[in-house]
Amino acid sequence: MIALSFAGPGKPVLQEKPKPALKEPTDAIVRITTTTICGTDLHILKGDVPEVPRGLTLGHEGVGIVDAVGSGVAMVKRGDKVLISCITACGKCDMCRRAMTSQCANGGWILGHRIDGTQAEFVRVPHADTSLYPIRWDVPDEAPLVMLSDVLPTGYECGVLSGAVKPGDVVAIVGAGPIGLSALLSAQFYSPAKIIMIDPDRNRLDVAATLGAHHTVSVNPVEAVLALTEGKGVDVSIEAVGVPESFDVCQAIVAPGGHIANVGVHGKSVDLHLERLWSRNITLTTRLVDTVTIPFLLKAVAAGRLDTSSLVTHRYKLAEILDAYDLFGRAAATGALKVILST
Amino acid sequence: MIALSFAGPGKPVLQEKPKPALKEPTDAIVRITTTTICGTDLHILKGDVPEVPRGLTLGHEGVGIVDAVGSGVAMVKRGDKVLISCITACGKCDMCRRAMTSQCANGGWILGHRIDGTQAEFVRVPHADTSLYPIRWDVPDEAPLVMLSDVLPTGYECGVLSGAVKPGDVVAIVGAGPIGLSALLSAQFYSPAKIIMIDPDRNRLDVAATLGAHHTVSVNPVEAVLALTEGKGVDVSIEAVGVPESFDVCQAIVAPGGHIANVGVHGKSVDLHLERLWSRNITLTTRLVDTVTIPFLLKAVAAGRLDTSSLVTHRYKLAEILDAYDLFGRAAATGALKVILST
Amino acid sequence: MIALSFAGPGKPVLQEKPKPALKEPTDAIVRITTTTICGTDLHILKGDVPEVPRGLTLGHEGVGIVDAVGSGVAMVKRGDKVLISCITACGKCDMCRRAMTSQCANGGWILGHRIDGTQAEFVRVPHADTSLYPIRWDVPDEAPLVMLSDVLPTGYECGVLSGAVKPGDVVAIVGAGPIGLSALLSAQFYSPAKIIMIDPDRNRLDVAATLGAHHTVSVNPVEAVLALTEGKGVDVSIEAVGVPESFDVCQAIVAPGGHIANVGVHGKSVDLHLERLWSRNITLTTRLVDTVTIPFLLKAVAAGRLDTSSLVTHRYKLAEILDAYDLFGRAAATGALKVILST
Amino acid sequence: MIALSFAGPGKPVLQEKPKPALKEPTDAIVRITTTTICGTDLHILKGDVPEVPRGLTLGHEGVGIVDAVGSGVAMVKRGDKVLISCITACGKCDMCRRAMTSQCANGGWILGHRIDGTQAEFVRVPHADTSLYPIRWDVPDEAPLVMLSDVLPTGYECGVLSGAVKPGDVVAIVGAGPIGLSALLSAQFYSPAKIIMIDPDRNRLDVAATLGAHHTVSVNPVEAVLALTEGKGVDVSIEAVGVPESFDVCQAIVAPGGHIANVGVHGKSVDLHLERLWSRNITLTTRLVDTVTIPFLLKAVAAGRLDTSSLVTHRYKLAEILDAYDLFGRAAATGALKVILST
Repeated sequence: MIALSFAGPGKPVLQEKPKPALKEPTDAIVRITTTTICGTDLHILKGDVPEVPRGLTLGHEGVGIVDAVGSGVAMVKRGDKVLISCITACGKCDMCRRAMTSQCANGGWILGHRIDGTQAEFVRVPHADTSLYPIRWDVPDEAPLVMLSDVLPTGYECGVLSGAVKPGDVVAIVGAGPIGLSALLSAQFYSPAKIIMIDPDRNRLDVAATLGAHHTVSVNPVEAVLALTEGKGVDVSIEAVGVPESFDVCQAIVAPGGHIANVGVHGKSVDLHLERLWSRNITLTTRLVDTVTIPFLLKAVAAGRLDTSSLVTHRYKLAEILDAYDLFGRAAATGALKVILST
Repeated sequence: MIALSFAGPGKPVLQEKPKPALKEPTDAIVRITTTTICGTDLHILKGDVPEVPRGLTLGHEGVGIVDAVGSGVAMVKRGDKVLISCITACGKCDMCRRAMTSQCANGGWILGHRIDGTQAEFVRVPHADTSLYPIRWDVPDEAPLVMLSDVLPTGYECGVLSGAVKPGDVVAIVGAGPIGLSALLSAQFYSPAKIIMIDPDRNRLDVAATLGAHHTVSVNPVEAVLALTEGKGVDVSIEAVGVPESFDVCQAIVAPGGHIANVGVHGKSVDLHLERLWSRNITLTTRLVDTVTIPFLLKAVAAGRLDTSSLVTHRYKLAEILDAYDLFGRAAATGALKVILST
Repeated sequence: MIALSFAGPGKPVLQEKPKPALKEPTDAIVRITTTTICGTDLHILKGDVPEVPRGLTLGHEGVGIVDAVGSGVAMVKRGDKVLISCITACGKCDMCRRAMTSQCANGGWILGHRIDGTQAEFVRVPHADTSLYPIRWDVPDEAPLVMLSDVLPTGYECGVLSGAVKPGDVVAIVGAGPIGLSALLSAQFYSPAKIIMIDPDRNRLDVAATLGAHHTVSVNPVEAVLALTEGKGVDVSIEAVGVPESFDVCQAIVAPGGHIANVGVHGKSVDLHLERLWSRNITLTTRLVDTVTIPFLLKAVAAGRLDTSSLVTHRYKLAEILDAYDLFGRAAATGALKVILST
Repeated sequence: MIALSFAGPGKPVLQEKPKPALKEPTDAIVRITTTTICGTDLHILKGDVPEVPRGLTLGHEGVGIVDAVGSGVAMVKRGDKVLISCITACGKCDMCRRAMTSQCANGGWILGHRIDGTQAEFVRVPHADTSLYPIRWDVPDEAPLVMLSDVLPTGYECGVLSGAVKPGDVVAIVGAGPIGLSALLSAQFYSPAKIIMIDPDRNRLDVAATLGAHHTVSVNPVEAVLALTEGKGVDVSIEAVGVPESFDVCQAIVAPGGHIANVGVHGKSVDLHLERLWSRNITLTTRLVDTVTIPFLLKAVAAGRLDTSSLVTHRYKLAEILDAYDLFGRAAATGALKVILST
């Protein structure tokens, strides 16, 4: 089968590999029908994630068809169409039992990180019963569903739920990439009064406006948000970029009693202004997605109450994945949000 | 009457002042019988709190007897013995209705900060109905009760409740001063499995041990805590000092899924290691005490279930307050925790 | 002034009474511009609420203009347009501090129950600062706002919030009167997957359908709901009638792990089937509205995100209130939901 | 092997049966070393639980040693000492992922109910990874640990946690049998101000007093509780009997804003006084134990912070189980709480 391999910093290689086989009774093999590329994959390719071994197949998102299951798998069977969670959860350790599967002692984010991932024709998924989610066969287009492997639950769980968005809140989301837009889409389940999207890229803000943002801000975000909130600041500020500058915006605009929900993947430390925040009753959360909301999100998509199709901007065949990486890596120029790869 | 005034940085003055009078129908005048000094008072005297005007009477803690009430006061009357909350709460603004009285639009921490405080023979308390708490007359010693004006609710609300301590948790408290010891005392209401107290001062750790600490650590706190927790870290780490070094300990020892509850008053920003914490499902809280737990704490003291007397190390007459400040300002040498002043 | 008095069972009287005067420094006098009739007023008139004294002015809902305030009132002033909460809250007692104002030691539901109410040209409102809510002057039509004195917060707090409605839930509301419809409107703030309205009155169900109900059921509700939920039952069942039959429906359709939120005013006990429910992890709540959500609801109406105008079916002048009572008392025949009275 | 079989109403039989074998890859076979009898077993023997098939081995509590595991079992291995949960949890269905394992689609309470149970020399435990809990080998006496299979988590989860006991609460527990005493023991993790135990049996109340009850009441419970609470009633009332009379006590003594936590197994419906409770902001919960707190409780026992040994009143060999049933069935006369059976 073909697979996209990490051959070292700056070296993605599309190569032929043996089809994976079952190793444990709890494994499943899934034939990938649709996958996509994540910003994290770009970080790996740059060499920013040193634990990724050379030769690993990248990718942690996908929809496919179950090809084989181990003897201990009970919830899915050969022939089922499934969504692959970016988080592999054993369902048995202390963390899984606390529904904090991102910290699973026997899994977590391992696909395309510690073990071969989904940018291939087949993938082995450990702990299949608690890491795969059946979907209906009659899905006309899988692309919007692949958004539920990672980006939608990430925006929802790490941004909206950890940020405790509630009816009437004023919410600011810093970063209008796929994750920030996912937070925007899913925040609306809680009827906030106002959602303010912040991003220097006007193109992304235009998408945000069509997806329900009440206000969009491209420059001077702190001043702009304070002006939009009568100087009070926001109830919830969601960091969806992962750099000190965007975190700074979040801590500058949060109102007393408010929440800062960090979603972004950070490469260095940030300056936390406790000299100002210590007395302001702030809650700051960090979270790697647990994907515990996938079943809910699948139903919301099926019922037409969540439309993730706007996040999909480009489509390729898996065999063209190197072109797809190139385009995705130049998102500012190409307007790429999520790039779909079909087999 | 006599009162301790802030005459400028480094200049505490004990001086004669006119007895305060009612200004608003919601005011009460309280004759102070017992008061105390807070670390914050030292900061003011050093000039670190620039908004404090010269000539202000310091102090935000105290027990006394109601001397007069305005026409709009219904819950206390002349002659009642009362505890004075360090937080003045109007009970009517949005923040008070959310029980976040520390952020009260018409009050908050104002005693000894924006208006004359409690280190005097009389004090005017605005919004008396929601800022004073009746106590029983037959209190043999008021000193342990004065701990409930500020330090006990601060340790409990900002440390234990915001940190969400629950049965079975492993808790670390960085700082064994009056606030850290208050967190130690009140954390035990939730039966944590282990409380680890961290402080370079062995004298304070000895007090902590008598108050229920399971372990005390004076050097290499990160290594020590990891050794005590099989490398896992703690469920809740409580910062009760207010300097970057102690915050660093907190973020180094918190386990995935854990809480960092900041209690300390910080004078400068800290380095938050999001490059490590972004994926560890951490909750970090800041809080100025709301004193909403004073009624519960008063009952716990009355029932003998909370003994705050160990926090009181020295006693003076109000007329000797300059000596008391001197002793309190050299706590490491004198072993002072809380210094009581009686009239 | 004119006022609607309770002259004994079956005897509403429209009579001339003296304009009320301030009694306490915390009182306000409000000139009523719009009021309405509640189902509870009918109960009082039938003699079902024996504690109501003869001669009392009925009514606990209204919008008006502040005519006078006592010396202890700070949050509203003469000339302000205000919404009157059906719950009078002192803001100072233990229950008010727990935000459970319905159980206020010095207030609660007293207007038109223990003291003269709002079906008059003027009303005295005790504890005005925490019982009146300023509204903007430029309200084109006060009728939809009067819904926020009681019915909207009742449906929202006692039904939706106590029932813990969350995104993706299946919700059944038994009773499509003004309260049930208020629950229907406000449940949508939490994006449930499905709302099923149950009522024998097809006219009311038609209104429900226009207000967002996904399904309406007029006969065999238990069978119908089970059919609509693949036999699983509902996550939240809201009782908005107040008779044993409707409570029975609620307990028959709730799924394991689900909520029964009682909103209805019950005149007799119900049979709770613990022999079936003891092992099904059910949460059952009762609640008298606290009206703590009025500020949020006012903003939602102002922002156009909550349209309560459909609840208003008829309009009269206050002088015609006896006609209004007659029409409201024959709701099944007249199709009355809420009947507005203007001065 | 020998096993206690249900041969029909009134007919317990101790008989020889074949040792169970693995059926599914997720099964384990456990050699029982200690088991016990539950009140539910008496109900089954009386014929009150018609779904129990004749010939079934009874018992759902036990400690033992793993004898064999299926290929899909990863968390325990042959030779491990384990606690058997009374709830069998697949860990994979929707309910298990919500931590509501009592409602597991593939398990729940099945041991000694739907499949052969623990009153035997060996038992087959399905879904072993999520239904067995490793314990240390060096346990001097297993009897106190067997209390964690069912009674302790039942009292804690269904009574204390569902009742939301918190520091300072006044708690009443109706019923001082093993379950009520378990609620008493575990309520103390949350430092309630007062725990009032109610039972007609003075012997059981004497045990309660030694286990931390602040007050014990054997007659006129409603009057007694109101007298002990200045007429206010209790914050939490826990029903631990399962008959209408005890439920009546609970609803008569709960204060406004309070909780009723039903733990008892009810055979018939109860009269719920909504005509009084509808306006009192009550939360009533039912729950079959999920045993999600077993890991915490095991640690608490190991650390000496939870002593369940007082619940064990009698000890027999498994071969003497008919005698044990006889004694346990006459608890009022024999003073039996829990009866231990060793192999």
